[in-house]
Amino acid sequence: MIRKQHLGVAVKNIDRAPQEEINRLEKFGAATVHEAQKRVGELHPELRPILKGKRIAGSAITVLLQPGDNWMLHVAMELAQPGDIIIAACTTPNTDGFFGDLLATSAIAQGIKGLVIDAGVRDTKDLEEMDFPVWSKAVSIRGTVKNTLGSVNIPIVCAGQIVNPGDVVVADDDGICIIASEDAKTVADAAQKREDYEGEKREQFENGVLGLDLYKMRPGLEKAGFTYFETQKDLEEAK
Amino acid sequence: MIRKQHLGVAVKNIDRAPQEEINRLEKFGAATVHEAQKRVGELHPELRPILKGKRIAGSAITVLLQPGDNWMLHVAMELAQPGDIIIAACTTPNTDGFFGDLLATSAIAQGIKGLVIDAGVRDTKDLEEMDFPVWSKAVSIRGTVKNTLGSVNIPIVCAGQIVNPGDVVVADDDGICIIASEDAKTVADAAQKREDYEGEKREQFENGVLGLDLYKMRPGLEKAGFTYFETQKDLEEAK
Amino acid sequence: MIRKQHLGVAVKNIDRAPQEEINRLEKFGAATVHEAQKRVGELHPELRPILKGKRIAGSAITVLLQPGDNWMLHVAMELAQPGDIIIAACTTPNTDGFFGDLLATSAIAQGIKGLVIDAGVRDTKDLEEMDFPVWSKAVSIRGTVKNTLGSVNIPIVCAGQIVNPGDVVVADDDGICIIASEDAKTVADAAQKREDYEGEKREQFENGVLGLDLYKMRPGLEKAGFTYFETQKDLEEAK
Amino acid sequence: MIRKQHLGVAVKNIDRAPQEEINRLEKFGAATVHEAQKRVGELHPELRPILKGKRIAGSAITVLLQPGDNWMLHVAMELAQPGDIIIAACTTPNTDGFFGDLLATSAIAQGIKGLVIDAGVRDTKDLEEMDFPVWSKAVSIRGTVKNTLGSVNIPIVCAGQIVNPGDVVVADDDGICIIASEDAKTVADAAQKREDYEGEKREQFENGVLGLDLYKMRPGLEKAGFTYFETQKDLEEAK
Amino acid sequence: MIRKQHLGVAVKNIDRAPQEEINRLEKFGAATVHEAQKRVGELHPELRPILKGKRIAGSAITVLLQPGDNWMLHVAMELAQPGDIIIAACTTPNTDGFFGDLLATSAIAQGIKGLVIDAGVRDTKDLEEMDFPVWSKAVSIRGTVKNTLGSVNIPIVCAGQIVNPGDVVVADDDGICIIASEDAKTVADAAQKREDYEGEKREQFENGVLGLDLYKMRPGLEKAGFTYFETQKDLEEAK
Amino acid sequence: MIRKQHLGVAVKNIDRAPQEEINRLEKFGAATVHEAQKRVGELHPELRPILKGKRIAGSAITVLLQPGDNWMLHVAMELAQPGDIIIAACTTPNTDGFFGDLLATSAIAQGIKGLVIDAGVRDTKDLEEMDFPVWSKAVSIRGTVKNTLGSVNIPIVCAGQIVNPGDVVVADDDGICIIASEDAKTVADAAQKREDYEGEKREQFENGVLGLDLYKMRPGLEKAGFTYFETQKDLEEAK
Repeated sequence: MIRKQHLGVAVKNIDRAPQEEINRLEKFGAATVHEAQKRVGELHPELRPILKGKRIAGSAITVLLQPGDNWMLHVAMELAQPGDIIIAACTTPNTDGFFGDLLATSAIAQGIKGLVIDAGVRDTKDLEEMDFPVWSKAVSIRGTVKNTLGSVNIPIVCAGQIVNPGDVVVADDDGICIIASEDAKTVADAAQKREDYEGEKREQFENGVLGLDLYKMRPGLEKAGFTYFETQKDLEEAK
Repeated sequence: MIRKQHLGVAVKNIDRAPQEEINRLEKFGAATVHEAQKRVGELHPELRPILKGKRIAGSAITVLLQPGDNWMLHVAMELAQPGDIIIAACTTPNTDGFFGDLLATSAIAQGIKGLVIDAGVRDTKDLEEMDFPVWSKAVSIRGTVKNTLGSVNIPIVCAGQIVNPGDVVVADDDGICIIASEDAKTVADAAQKREDYEGEKREQFENGVLGLDLYKMRPGLEKAGFTYFETQKDLEEAK
Repeated sequence: MIRKQHLGVAVKNIDRAPQEEINRLEKFGAATVHEAQKRVGELHPELRPILKGKRIAGSAITVLLQPGDNWMLHVAMELAQPGDIIIAACTTPNTDGFFGDLLATSAIAQGIKGLVIDAGVRDTKDLEEMDFPVWSKAVSIRGTVKNTLGSVNIPIVCAGQIVNPGDVVVADDDGICIIASEDAKTVADAAQKREDYEGEKREQFENGVLGLDLYKMRPGLEKAGFTYFETQKDLEEAK
Repeated sequence: MIRKQHLGVAVKNIDRAPQEEINRLEKFGAATVHEAQKRVGELHPELRPILKGKRIAGSAITVLLQPGDNWMLHVAMELAQPGDIIIAACTTPNTDGFFGDLLATSAIAQGIKGLVIDAGVRDTKDLEEMDFPVWSKAVSIRGTVKNTLGSVNIPIVCAGQIVNPGDVVVADDDGICIIASEDAKTVADAAQKREDYEGEKREQFENGVLGLDLYKMRPGLEKAGFTYFETQKDLEEAK
Repeated sequence: MIRKQHLGVAVKNIDRAPQEEINRLEKFGAATVHEAQKRVGELHPELRPILKGKRIAGSAITVLLQPGDNWMLHVAMELAQPGDIIIAACTTPNTDGFFGDLLATSAIAQGIKGLVIDAGVRDTKDLEEMDFPVWSKAVSIRGTVKNTLGSVNIPIVCAGQIVNPGDVVVADDDGICIIASEDAKTVADAAQKREDYEGEKREQFENGVLGLDLYKMRPGLEKAGFTYFETQKDLEEAK
Repeated sequence: MIRKQHLGVAVKNIDRAPQEEINRLEKFGAATVHEAQKRVGELHPELRPILKGKRIAGSAITVLLQPGDNWMLHVAMELAQPGDIIIAACTTPNTDGFFGDLLATSAIAQGIKGLVIDAGVRDTKDLEEMDFPVWSKAVSIRGTVKNTLGSVNIPIVCAGQIVNPGDVVVADDDGICIIASEDAKTVADAAQKREDYEGEKREQFENGVLGLDLYKMRPGLEKAGFTYFETQKDLEEAK
């Protein structure tokens, strides 16, 4: 009856983006995809990777958790397909350790590709040894109970970003970007263009060309009234 | 082409909940409505009222701002109808003063009922004198530019909550709750029931009945293994 | 078996300080008592009063809550005696609204004097109308469940401070100070001396005597190598 | 020998802005002065007024404190002249209560106009009764020692802003702005112009003129590619 | 005379847990010990390891520091025995660098096993080269004075947790857990049981058994009213 | 006309410290230099290195950025000389990704030695591969626009510290310290003395001499009233 953030429900089947597009997005990484999507879709930078050097993309299995309660992660494990990424938010800010080596063992067994969680995790040494990529906002030894219902595969807000089930999650050392499943191809195409263009620019920068010239910024600066002074003294006298 | 959080667009016409239901929701206040909606829809408690003792409800005109840039608030002023509430988020956390006495003057002239903004405002003394209710996360003298596009009347994430244009915003001293326009009647009915029931409970509490008895909690405590000790010494010896 | 922060227990009878000493401590207020106690016992300043201008003291009924779960507050209501203050911490940081008008109604009926909680509360307008003093770190419309056990009347850490059941809690606009029940008289005596002495000092300050002279600080400054310069230029040249 | 943030020194005589200009700046308030100064000079908004409704301006007596140590405030008391404002920073973030009723008594006796401190204060009820205006980032019962040297009347960084001794401090409910003493007249003139102009604008806003028209924003929006859609459906189909 | 958090004292001799039990606890690590202790005893997750991959346990030498003052760490060095861990809190939040290569050299010479400090440290590269494990909440170049008394070997609150002298400190990449010395054996036994049991569970997870089945969660979900929907559409229609 | 934090200007030529002194300061590192400078000049510890194990020193090219806008970094690229360090602050707190692989490519081509920024950066993996040292307060995929003017080579406040163009910036794993260019030699000399002296102390610490004896602290402790007790029981009885 109540529409927003239904509690106590799970949706079994979700629409996913084509695997081919997910693979393309993964290759570009979170920052490039974010630019290609015109700077929308990023999660807050408080979420940091536990494993360095990882870059993954997959379809979102969304989870809404209660504080200090990881019951719903178990529900998510069953609904995820190989290649999916679990992305979990909490009804209220919380840094407890919702996920550790046992759940990671289960996730790997189910073929899950990684976890993004706006909360805490633990057993970080095991996660590294298992090579299971996780992004979280805290590391905490404090475990969780299984007493209060949340939901799985409903729209959530995770670290300031709307995430729908089936959205593509792209995560790496720089952060996490969300792409709507129906936009996957469009964004991947735009990212490809951007990367092609960046290659040219990189070469010019390497040759010592300045951004001021490469991006033709000098007229804009002048028009905006930007003023150069030879020395600090000149600036002071000009005032 | 890019779906999420379109930048540079405004939608002129939005669906609103019936005024009658908005009025009912206003009467109950944010906390009761939040309970009636089964504890979903609240904004983070960092947003606090500038004016104490206000309680308002209205249809959401959503605004997505760029940091330090209030251009879109001017666009919103034109699209709002009398009785609407402007609710604004920023693409990245920012506490500058996006709104002050001039914009409040304009808002009042347009019949706008109040402002909820996940950022800063200023001229707070004027806002009080004008009796224009505002909820913000900061008060800041730092003004803003009008250089970079955001959007108006698209879905936004404000203080951790999804807000769609036309959603009902209920705000008072305790905080802010969002209700989907199509749920307005259902939630108002549930709030009414809750309030009726709370009246009975309040009377019992006044008469000294304990929550343990009123909510019949004792069996649950016992079942969960909760143990009473007469003294601290008993507890220590029992271990 | 496990000693620290026992979960799932309550102690019925606790030792309290003599009411006469509690009354004396209340009169001095939190800052003076804190000084009299040689600057120990304060709670972190994040906890702020909901009602302005209140000054209360009472024996601590300690409560350890789980995040988003106020079950234990109901247990505390039964164990508190008239004049007691409920002081509640959470096992993990949380800002939900654990306490509102119904629980305040119950608290008043039981003769409880006030609430100190390292979490959130709601129905703040009602709390003011009921004249029930509360100190909290947040105001939040988000209600709580009753699913997971905490404890009542065990030693807790509240806002950075150890609180034992029966400790004296002194709270006012400036903050909150905890005094061990067996120290109540000693601290009240020290506070009285301090206040007597402060009266003399206040008079001297009113007469324009400087702290430098009143506290005889000049020799100490000189000994520590503190140097006066007539002008900024002198300072620069002296370097 | 070491130039930056000299510790253990005080400068007795500082240059102040003309009193007439200080009076003019006080009248405009912090937000208007900040705008008139082209949006520079504001302190971070964490600093909030203890007394509501105050608006003061005065010459800065700058103080650099050590954490938990208010020795230098006593030195400042002697160097301040009637009408000055003491503005204090700490070498490292700290929220202890550096200032209370006794120091306020002394400050009033010396004719000091107010205090701005990037730390905590206490005895807030007394400060209100004494009508002594204070801006701080915390209220804390925790007092301070007098063991470690800081400085008085050297350049400091207070809440993110450079403050030189003798700068004009303008503070009110909206925040705090710093104006270099030699700029006082220029900024006051610019503030006057701005206020004159704001009067006209206010009237237009009252008459229902939109900011879009008053500021001639429509061509800019169009040039930047801003697009209006009649309905959400139109926006979705246009993609 | 004043009981709580005595300032200016040190206790020379403390009770320690049997070395054999400390060794067992070390082997299990902080998260397992925390679970074995029924989820009590953890320090806030802001404290992070400077050296990765360390796991240590030892008896607590507790230190109460003043902000920006590391005098008491020198007192602690003398009272610690080989194998002890120094655990330090500050009377008020502070991130200065209280500990660096010289104190680490001294600590190693005294046989001290590691440092846990709710404040900052420096010379982190040296700490790594010396292989001396440290957990802190900040890295800061800012050194400290030796002017104001704290205490050694009294009960402290460190990062939200009560720590008594002689408690067992277990610290690793996941965080820090405190065990009362008299509980060391009980907790180690419980941790051993837990680890045995986890081995079985890990194997089942590896074989693809879901937590829903392993923990028999399905009846509980059903009883709590948890509902599965085939598709998002089904969920929407069901409302 | 307005003096403080001029917006929209750049100064081309700045005074730098002698390269020889910069080299000496680099060798000592940030913490030693900070001590040598009598504990002034440090940036807040929120700024952390992206690359571990780097230690650099260079002349400051100062940049004042607008939130979410990296225009001025391009201006700075042209004004920097080989060996300089770009140090950037923002007019208002912001964590967006102002700097990534393209700007790093350009910086390396210009011979710039590193970047210190009180905001966010991205492409951190590329920065490591390029071996370009960066200190920032966040990592964020969110890119920036080029719409609003800031300034280059004016005095700024970066992470709580005044930085003048040409100041020496020393940065390593422990943090960042600023030295006025004219003080470079004096501070380097003081750092050398300190390091010589530290060598002696280190040896003594290695030999088991306690800081209490090395620094002759025992008389000071006694004078301050510090008291040793044999046992906790003695302490309790002594009260």
